[in-house]
Amino acid sequence: MASRRPTLRLFAQCKTKPQFNHTWTPRRAASSFQSSGSARQAFSNSRNYLTLAAAGLAVATGTLSYKMAVENPIRCDSPTLAERDNQIKREKGVNDASPMRLRMEKFVKEQQREIVRALEEADGTPFRVDEWQRKEGGGGITCVLQEGKVFEKAGVGVSVVYGTLPKPAIIKMRANHKNLAQEDDIPDSLEFFAAGLSLIVHPKNPMAPTVHLNYRYFETANPDGSSGAWWFGGGSDLTPSYLFDEDAIQFHKSLKEVCDAHDKEYYPRFKKWCDEYFYNKHRGECRGIGGIFFDDLDETVSDKENTFAFVQDALKSFAPTYISIINKRKDMPYTEEEKRWQQIRRGKYVEFNLVHDRGTAFGLNTPGARVESILMSLPLTARWEYMYEPAPKSREARLVEVLKNPKDWV
Amino acid sequence: MASRRPTLRLFAQCKTKPQFNHTWTPRRAASSFQSSGSARQAFSNSRNYLTLAAAGLAVATGTLSYKMAVENPIRCDSPTLAERDNQIKREKGVNDASPMRLRMEKFVKEQQREIVRALEEADGTPFRVDEWQRKEGGGGITCVLQEGKVFEKAGVGVSVVYGTLPKPAIIKMRANHKNLAQEDDIPDSLEFFAAGLSLIVHPKNPMAPTVHLNYRYFETANPDGSSGAWWFGGGSDLTPSYLFDEDAIQFHKSLKEVCDAHDKEYYPRFKKWCDEYFYNKHRGECRGIGGIFFDDLDETVSDKENTFAFVQDALKSFAPTYISIINKRKDMPYTEEEKRWQQIRRGKYVEFNLVHDRGTAFGLNTPGARVESILMSLPLTARWEYMYEPAPKSREARLVEVLKNPKDWV
Repeated sequence: MASRRPTLRLFAQCKTKPQFNHTWTPRRAASSFQSSGSARQAFSNSRNYLTLAAAGLAVATGTLSYKMAVENPIRCDSPTLAERDNQIKREKGVNDASPMRLRMEKFVKEQQREIVRALEEADGTPFRVDEWQRKEGGGGITCVLQEGKVFEKAGVGVSVVYGTLPKPAIIKMRANHKNLAQEDDIPDSLEFFAAGLSLIVHPKNPMAPTVHLNYRYFETANPDGSSGAWWFGGGSDLTPSYLFDEDAIQFHKSLKEVCDAHDKEYYPRFKKWCDEYFYNKHRGECRGIGGIFFDDLDETVSDKENTFAFVQDALKSFAPTYISIINKRKDMPYTEEEKRWQQIRRGKYVEFNLVHDRGTAFGLNTPGARVESILMSLPLTARWEYMYEPAPKSREARLVEVLKNPKDWV
Repeated sequence: MASRRPTLRLFAQCKTKPQFNHTWTPRRAASSFQSSGSARQAFSNSRNYLTLAAAGLAVATGTLSYKMAVENPIRCDSPTLAERDNQIKREKGVNDASPMRLRMEKFVKEQQREIVRALEEADGTPFRVDEWQRKEGGGGITCVLQEGKVFEKAGVGVSVVYGTLPKPAIIKMRANHKNLAQEDDIPDSLEFFAAGLSLIVHPKNPMAPTVHLNYRYFETANPDGSSGAWWFGGGSDLTPSYLFDEDAIQFHKSLKEVCDAHDKEYYPRFKKWCDEYFYNKHRGECRGIGGIFFDDLDETVSDKENTFAFVQDALKSFAPTYISIINKRKDMPYTEEEKRWQQIRRGKYVEFNLVHDRGTAFGLNTPGARVESILMSLPLTARWEYMYEPAPKSREARLVEVLKNPKDWV
């Protein structure tokens, strides 16, 4: 950030005061609503995120720019991407003709509200809503419901980041995205935008499955402010402690339908990618019974408009499907032994998230990260028993068998 | 291992049948005693371990060599380090004139029995004892006590590894150990030996502190079988949920006395190293109130005999000190809220071990690792509450304050 300061300070003399209006309005009374000045949320599981974190993220939000601008105004050169976006929002609002980054931001914030509302309705308990900004730049909204009636813990988070990629990061990212820059003309830096929604729900009842979801968008800006390279990533996966085939089929069927409506190759490809990514290598088993996972979905796969339409459909299909599964399971009877098995499975969930998940690990190792937003993914409680083995041919053993040998559910 | 096979197969024709006698005899009836064919224990926190794991560990124990030898005997060249050691054990036994590796192995196995006995006495519950070998080579003994009267979970593990360092690993390790090989004459491979004892105890009572300990020895073999480069590593650290200054002082004082008896510079240096290593960077706090940690203790610091004497004294001092602290705390009254705080602290212990501990992470990423021996370090149960903050000026807040700003206890 230090190197940006002089530029930002100058800016306030030449422009009207930039405004950053948070569009978030909680639909229901939440137990608390607060902002943190030192904050940032990781995009779990995102290869993009990883690369950005590795590059050291030089990030600036509109709010931050404004704060810095009024301190010591001196300059009149071109506005940052964040400043341009604030101007667009202020003057025109966000609609189908707006840049994709603004449409994606608007969409994930809408979806966050929708999903929070649906989960609150299923549980009967309001979420706590924390809106935060990171002093290095960027911000988000983290919504958490803890010790509810149906959910042990549920987290739904949105984050939006404006920043600058330094040259080494551009060179590294070109491995997967040739269109970031011409090989013989790599710029010293590139402004970027990233936005995403992450969600994890751990129900109380061991018969009800844990679910995870993440959808994200990344783009760089050309010097004139137009969009440069872009890609989408995301997916959703289910982690039961007790396997109900009908739930696994329903979950996968819903994802397959969404995928098939856009591209028949998506589901088989993203289903396999999911089984491979959410793999607890040291246990030799998948984290759960999968779903879909994809990254780097760019113009080599489909155009921006169609890809956004796919991401929208996939995200919108989540709540109806998951809530339907939860409603079937949340009141089922269970024993203390079954609760214990759930806790042991929770332990393995923690292992995946802390040992193997690239986004989580990198987030935690990034100075200034909002740790509580990253670790909202961890269950309320977990258990590790030395050498625990389920009884042969038990329901517990059948789950492990399926985790070791992922099934085709549809 | 594939490249060693022909050599090993030949060997059986030329030598008497190698024997590998495990010297382990459990002192008390244990709930189970079993061997696993696919096994290996990480040396938690060991930089040596890390480097070895990274190098892909081409390891052979005496037992393994024998098994391979009888399959298809064909050759007559020089015996491996493991074979030489088995011969020494068989013909002369292990005494003060034996190679250091055999003395260290004997010592850590003796200490394992002593510590297991002391913890069993404190708890009144026997440990489960698992002796295991890894099919790629190596082996150990893992002792675990779970859901005892005093201890929620206690693990005491020994592991012994014979293996071969390939050239790239030798080059990498020379950064810290110039005496591994001459710069202008780096061999294509080097046989090595490593042995260590690791221990972790999570008591039930939130007033009683968790403790961790690890002592290890590494050496390479010259072509004639004599010892090449060598170093010791180790340490011990305390992790209370509720801070009793007198316990912290007693723990550190005991370590300082042992250190001072060998070198006045050890304690301040190793105390600082411990605070730096067991640091939950993403939380901005130490895992516990420290102790000592050291690595790469070689002839640049002291001679082999004196260093072994120091390691022996340090390891022997552990049980009396810790058991004395446990006896003061194990029956103290506590509330449900205090148990909950302990569980939240356990969560942060899990975070350190799975996110930051180099040995654990590498062990888990090593194919064929005995995962249950590595993860015996995890508590039976742990808890993650979003945005949990202890009340200002509470005992919980004081602990966090000390974890953020490590104290000098003696």
